[in-house]
Amino acid sequence: MADPIITLTTDFGEDSPYVAAMKGVILTINPEVRIVDLSHQIPPQDLRHAAFFLAESLPWFPADAIHVAVIDPGVGSERALLYVEMECTRLLVPDNGCWTILQGQLRRVIQLRNKQYWREEVSNTFHGRDILAPVAAHLSRGVDPSLCGPLVKDWQRFEIPAPHRLPDVLTGEVIFVDRFGNTITNIPGDWVPAHVDSVQVGESERRQLDRVRAYADRAPGQLIGLISSSGLFELAVVQGNAAARLGARIGTPVFLRVK
Amino acid sequence: MADPIITLTTDFGEDSPYVAAMKGVILTINPEVRIVDLSHQIPPQDLRHAAFFLAESLPWFPADAIHVAVIDPGVGSERALLYVEMECTRLLVPDNGCWTILQGQLRRVIQLRNKQYWREEVSNTFHGRDILAPVAAHLSRGVDPSLCGPLVKDWQRFEIPAPHRLPDVLTGEVIFVDRFGNTITNIPGDWVPAHVDSVQVGESERRQLDRVRAYADRAPGQLIGLISSSGLFELAVVQGNAAARLGARIGTPVFLRVK
Amino acid sequence: MADPIITLTTDFGEDSPYVAAMKGVILTINPEVRIVDLSHQIPPQDLRHAAFFLAESLPWFPADAIHVAVIDPGVGSERALLYVEMECTRLLVPDNGCWTILQGQLRRVIQLRNKQYWREEVSNTFHGRDILAPVAAHLSRGVDPSLCGPLVKDWQRFEIPAPHRLPDVLTGEVIFVDRFGNTITNIPGDWVPAHVDSVQVGESERRQLDRVRAYADRAPGQLIGLISSSGLFELAVVQGNAAARLGARIGTPVFLRVK
Repeated sequence: MADPIITLTTDFGEDSPYVAAMKGVILTINPEVRIVDLSHQIPPQDLRHAAFFLAESLPWFPADAIHVAVIDPGVGSERALLYVEMECTRLLVPDNGCWTILQGQLRRVIQLRNKQYWREEVSNTFHGRDILAPVAAHLSRGVDPSLCGPLVKDWQRFEIPAPHRLPDVLTGEVIFVDRFGNTITNIPGDWVPAHVDSVQVGESERRQLDRVRAYADRAPGQLIGLISSSGLFELAVVQGNAAARLGARIGTPVFLRVK
Repeated sequence: MADPIITLTTDFGEDSPYVAAMKGVILTINPEVRIVDLSHQIPPQDLRHAAFFLAESLPWFPADAIHVAVIDPGVGSERALLYVEMECTRLLVPDNGCWTILQGQLRRVIQLRNKQYWREEVSNTFHGRDILAPVAAHLSRGVDPSLCGPLVKDWQRFEIPAPHRLPDVLTGEVIFVDRFGNTITNIPGDWVPAHVDSVQVGESERRQLDRVRAYADRAPGQLIGLISSSGLFELAVVQGNAAARLGARIGTPVFLRVK
Repeated sequence: MADPIITLTTDFGEDSPYVAAMKGVILTINPEVRIVDLSHQIPPQDLRHAAFFLAESLPWFPADAIHVAVIDPGVGSERALLYVEMECTRLLVPDNGCWTILQGQLRRVIQLRNKQYWREEVSNTFHGRDILAPVAAHLSRGVDPSLCGPLVKDWQRFEIPAPHRLPDVLTGEVIFVDRFGNTITNIPGDWVPAHVDSVQVGESERRQLDRVRAYADRAPGQLIGLISSSGLFELAVVQGNAAARLGARIGTPVFLRVK
């Protein structure tokens, strides 16, 4: 049988020793684990960024992987720490809602309360190292999640604002900007017809927009609209940076005239 | 026998979910794989940077590792995807030429055409996730590469411009700038004699240059020339940044007076 | 038995091929190794940053992990390369002192001299690839460290300046700034009483300071003092950046009025 997998997603950056400390804690409890880095470059404390990141990452993994996601502006407060089990995903996460846009059937949510699986000494500033990492390592050794704490029925929720659809107008907002400046909206790709008249993003001017199939369908520098790899409507500049040109950030409104 | 190795080299950055999705796809098809990150910080769509990176990285790995390199400005166009097999390296890569400066004997190049080893649904914007990652995972399970598609005899080529050698002048260009600002040229280290008179980089002024053996041979702040760890002539500033001082970037001409 | 672990800590960044080359060298010598990245984002040649990073990372790992740390401004000089064995940690490192603040009992220090475990050809600019990586891989295969070279009794040392304690004043300096701007001092957390009057950091003005238990104890934007996850006194701004507000960097003096 393959060695168990624990993935890590954090906003810790890589110049600080926090990620390394978590890896050490995990491997001390279960030396057989394969640790897979998903990202340590989530922008600091940016829960919306983290939510999209997790929704687009975790479903691709085998169902028995254990995902640890530490974006935790509330560390040290009374916020709970959760074990979340969905049909195809298991994750350990502070109760901040950033997992609640994951697609899929929810099986159970357990609040981590049983200190038997924590570090003996728990700091007030680093529950990733002191609680989530050791619990993940114990789960990877086969500990039954129900031993980690009680079932809970309530948790922080996080909604992506709904897009809207009128006969000739689609409205929504930016939910992600990637490294290339590709600007992903919450408007479902299949809402958008083959011809789009124009787009307006935030306060920027209205612009003509070519609805295409792929980046390579237009010349470098041209603004295009297409269906992203996650099935959502995306704005891009061929070999350029759409977010910079449009002034788009997470949350910026998008107004699409589809005539 | 050791678990198979798949390495990843991309320009995706680490704040986007694209790398994570590829890792999930690979581990779902072959849970035994060890994934090794080479870099996700190739500058966006910079094929020259990627070419040097791959040439200096892949030859160090065991011959049975499978390398996946996704720097893919042409995604969604008609550009092919390739399986490249050299004497000591195997890689999966869009047909963009960035592998063609790798040293070593080429055995065969196969165009990925057999959809049996792809994701069922293939997006127009992310062939790394939908084609290259699943093919890599299937190969790591022992699938015969010849099942992935037909042999091809033609592909994009990528040449590093040749350096030139006159009795008292060597000319070439910058082919890489590393994080320290060390500026690596295409001039072979063994062309450069023990005494160098001066160097001129791009439009910058002509400067005296000490040809040394190692960074530590001169005082901090001094401009030096030496043989890089890849055997090429390199310009450096001791404990400083040569590229910044000289205004050097990939492609900047270098003119070395050696008499 | 679990596959052996080699961790890597460097200042190489991730756009250069140096980390990848080290990984390839290791896996060629020992294909069974699991490589764990700690960081490749140590600021270039910043030994103080590296020292704190290692002190806060390595103790969390299993004692049989082999840690390779390459922050090496002296590469190519006569500086030695060391195998350091402490009660709970083993590391390979240039003799630059950055490991000497690690807590724990020192067992032995060996100077790497036996070229049998090096790459055959050793460059003058990259001993991480040519010496440290192959030695680490051989050690992971069970080579006896005493075969790598002679015991030594002298090495570079690196001291964190001692903090000072007067009845109503604690003085020290900044020893680390993390990605969030949290500013960690060399003042032991248990020196600091429940009430702090004010803090002065470097040339900045004297400021009132709330001594709290956790970030979440105050409103966003407020300057607080608390015990860091490493047990040291830390300055933070709730959901903000203390280092930016205070102008703090490694080495900046900190003056704490505690009465």
